[in-house]
Amino acid sequence: MSSIFTKIINREIPAYIIAEDELHIAFLDINPLCMGHTLIIPKVEVDYIFDLEDKRFTELHLFSKKVALAIKKSIACDRIGTTVIGLEVPHAHIHLIPINTMDDINFAKPKLSPSTEDMQTIAKKISDNLE
Amino acid sequence: MSSIFTKIINREIPAYIIAEDELHIAFLDINPLCMGHTLIIPKVEVDYIFDLEDKRFTELHLFSKKVALAIKKSIACDRIGTTVIGLEVPHAHIHLIPINTMDDINFAKPKLSPSTEDMQTIAKKISDNLE
Repeated sequence: MSSIFTKIINREIPAYIIAEDELHIAFLDINPLCMGHTLIIPKVEVDYIFDLEDKRFTELHLFSKKVALAIKKSIACDRIGTTVIGLEVPHAHIHLIPINTMDDINFAKPKLSPSTEDMQTIAKKISDNLE
Repeated sequence: MSSIFTKIINREIPAYIIAEDELHIAFLDINPLCMGHTLIIPKVEVDYIFDLEDKRFTELHLFSKKVALAIKKSIACDRIGTTVIGLEVPHAHIHLIPINTMDDINFAKPKLSPSTEDMQTIAKKISDNLE
């Protein structure tokens, strides 16, 4: 069965997509820790990020860097924190999270439930800030 | 003034070093979330990881991958989680953390205070497992 992320790639389920190329896609986390919380995934359905061969691993991180720079331009924050946990969905993904304090990247915190309109606005803003 | 990490690179303060090359160094976090919690840093003293130019950014992540694979071989865990927060020390660093549950990568948790002997043993084990 396809992962939920593969369903997003295939447009079988909706997502607030920020960026996409042949190998990767970036979209807003639907249960964000804060506004602008973004997921970066490779289109290939690999569970563990360190199983990606060096070239694919590198490309994923460079794609992630590009999106992180755009998020930083779009959201007032000290910097973009990143984390890869991978216990939730068996499809490698990098979390990009605008942070000001250590607590902003604490996954034990309650998640936000932003409106569709707010998510669309922020996805468009980040997308517009991509270089 | 040099960052605490530059002092580690220069051997001005001690650390449990796992791996080193011309551009990077990996050592155990002195206040680990769990045994095997490792920091990966570039030798260049840059504060924000996304300020590294693409080549340096890529090399850092590939070095990090190599160490992550060695940690996974050394510590019983589901996988190696990673995070870059960067609010603690103004010298870019990737945390590599052996995890089994989401809570294992929660920085709000109390840190461990392992013995020197335990830290030496684990550093050597990871180092021996590098390919």
